[in-house]
Amino acid sequence: MQKHDQDYIKKKNKATVFQLIKSSSPISRASIAKKTGMSPTTVGRIVAELYEQGFVKETEEQVTTGLGRKATMLELDRTSVLTAGVELDKSKFRIGMVDFDGRIISLREVNREVSETAEQTLNRIGLELQSMIEQEGMDPGKIIGLGIGMPGIVDEQSGEVILSAQLGWRNVRVAETLKTITGYEVAVDNELKVKALAEYCYGAAKGSKRTALIGFGTGVGSALIINGEIYRGETNSAGEIGHTIVDPNGVMCECGKIGCLQTYIAESSLITESNKIKPISTLNELFEERRKGQFWAANILDRAITFIGITIANVICLYNPDTVIVSGDLVEKYDEVRSFFENDQLQQYVWEPLRDTYQVVYSALGSEGVVIGSSLLAQEKFLSIEC
Amino acid sequence: MQKHDQDYIKKKNKATVFQLIKSSSPISRASIAKKTGMSPTTVGRIVAELYEQGFVKETEEQVTTGLGRKATMLELDRTSVLTAGVELDKSKFRIGMVDFDGRIISLREVNREVSETAEQTLNRIGLELQSMIEQEGMDPGKIIGLGIGMPGIVDEQSGEVILSAQLGWRNVRVAETLKTITGYEVAVDNELKVKALAEYCYGAAKGSKRTALIGFGTGVGSALIINGEIYRGETNSAGEIGHTIVDPNGVMCECGKIGCLQTYIAESSLITESNKIKPISTLNELFEERRKGQFWAANILDRAITFIGITIANVICLYNPDTVIVSGDLVEKYDEVRSFFENDQLQQYVWEPLRDTYQVVYSALGSEGVVIGSSLLAQEKFLSIEC
Repeated sequence: MQKHDQDYIKKKNKATVFQLIKSSSPISRASIAKKTGMSPTTVGRIVAELYEQGFVKETEEQVTTGLGRKATMLELDRTSVLTAGVELDKSKFRIGMVDFDGRIISLREVNREVSETAEQTLNRIGLELQSMIEQEGMDPGKIIGLGIGMPGIVDEQSGEVILSAQLGWRNVRVAETLKTITGYEVAVDNELKVKALAEYCYGAAKGSKRTALIGFGTGVGSALIINGEIYRGETNSAGEIGHTIVDPNGVMCECGKIGCLQTYIAESSLITESNKIKPISTLNELFEERRKGQFWAANILDRAITFIGITIANVICLYNPDTVIVSGDLVEKYDEVRSFFENDQLQQYVWEPLRDTYQVVYSALGSEGVVIGSSLLAQEKFLSIEC
Repeated sequence: MQKHDQDYIKKKNKATVFQLIKSSSPISRASIAKKTGMSPTTVGRIVAELYEQGFVKETEEQVTTGLGRKATMLELDRTSVLTAGVELDKSKFRIGMVDFDGRIISLREVNREVSETAEQTLNRIGLELQSMIEQEGMDPGKIIGLGIGMPGIVDEQSGEVILSAQLGWRNVRVAETLKTITGYEVAVDNELKVKALAEYCYGAAKGSKRTALIGFGTGVGSALIINGEIYRGETNSAGEIGHTIVDPNGVMCECGKIGCLQTYIAESSLITESNKIKPISTLNELFEERRKGQFWAANILDRAITFIGITIANVICLYNPDTVIVSGDLVEKYDEVRSFFENDQLQQYVWEPLRDTYQVVYSALGSEGVVIGSSLLAQEKFLSIEC
């Protein structure tokens, strides 16, 4: 069991020391030992590790302890570490170089052909990264790894993409392949999970203890962050709300079940329904039709808004979060949907005892969330540090 | 933030030492320090606390360390501690005295009048506990507290019952009142949460990292245990799946929403639907009608079974557990429903990528789960120890 595991204890001890230096620097080794209950040997070993990794430096400052000895103070070296974050989507990918505090210092967006193979795409990511490093004159030695966020089910331990319906990938060893291409360590995860992590660390959910992020896009999914940790579940699939059944008499889903939530609110579903009436291809066009007074468009969107409410209410029942972040064009971009939140119509769908227990917010990092979150994932995975 | 909090570190350190003594006893203080990275001072302080609380004793055995010194070995004293666990329901309550290893050493069940006030019920619990202690000749000094598991929303921090629709209680300070009556510390929680805890510690979910328990009874609810800890959410209401909306065109729920899951499978809902056709008052009668070939009974139960499948499938999507415990008469007692599980018909409702990720099991502790879980809650709360 995890609790008894010594590797686990070591990892936790390191995280504790790191957090303490981050929150209380400058701080001495002795003070760390006192505050954590760890032995001076343990603290010394962990600090040495952090020092070697380049995170921690000694300050000029020294303090005199009770016994008249000098203690060297420690603080974080925020300039020492870079991670690259990649957002990978069907029709584009974006690469950002991110510093220790989650700031993007360079970003580029590249189109992706839908016909590209996984290998072609991963090769192009490698080339773009190399080109960014050279053009910006970055020190490659400071880059400690690469994180990727993408839609689908990802085995984040091995870095293998089990299934990404959007990209049409099945069992692709992304981390392994990209490590061979770039030479860097690579971490891969579901895009909503890393986005939620970014919002927790630097965005709309700072200080939240239980954050649920719901993404309304090509598919519909959610992620849960508990005390700063992504809740993954057994196969990193927790939060797959798009395939919960919300109407057993409903519409056939591409997954073979009937009445899955995403058949009512995924962008692709809304477009498919619309095309029974009129050939359109974007959400913009659908909202335009509604504004022109087309009842069919109003019917589709009214139903979608009802199900947006149900989605959030169901997430609140199961996760009981303090913060719900709603993200995606459908909920962020159109006044018709924004007014649903602004007028607090959501309350109609929320179980009464839970009505005052949460706040609903838009994402603060917007389109940069996945890039930042992917780089944080790499920080966590390769440096055992948390934001 | 919790991570940086020194009280939190202290509590975690204590739990770590306790776990280690439990899993590796006999063990010396020096060995604990080495394995945990803690200082001898910290280990000494924690061991002294555990010794004083009566959990830890020194063994006869001594080992000679490398330096030729004798080290005293420590082990748990399993006979030193008792906690009382109470299961409180509408029409009865049960009190069990539980030992350190989760074994019930004495149990009694007492009827409760539905008309009883909260104060009357709590007084009767106090009297029964007193009577048990006297009749069994127990040492009151060994009893370190009392845990209560009951239906409803409970503020487990303060021990106040916010709302229990089943008992008709609203804002009842159960812990405070019962402490005044009995003199013991009192912990209170939702019955499904403590039941899941008991199954994790000593029942069907031993060794599971992510357990979901779903209770099908007067209401429908669920609980999630992550690495041995109850996931509570912001107001201890996580898992209230009974009020997720699974059919926006469905039946009116007593909560004021339409299509809540529990309108299709809560026992009370099944009885209410049945009474539109024939006056019956128990699940037994409903199943009997079905066995007699009554189509109305078949229609109600077939729909219920569909929604049992949907309930479990939706929990799997959101929690991605390794183990799902199903409990309650509806799912455990009748062959018609048991065959649904035994023939693995559940798979029909589960999203394809998740089909091999979980096991569904019945509870192992059965009707004793809430009593045992309540006592474990008291152990955790008043001794800062985990099973």
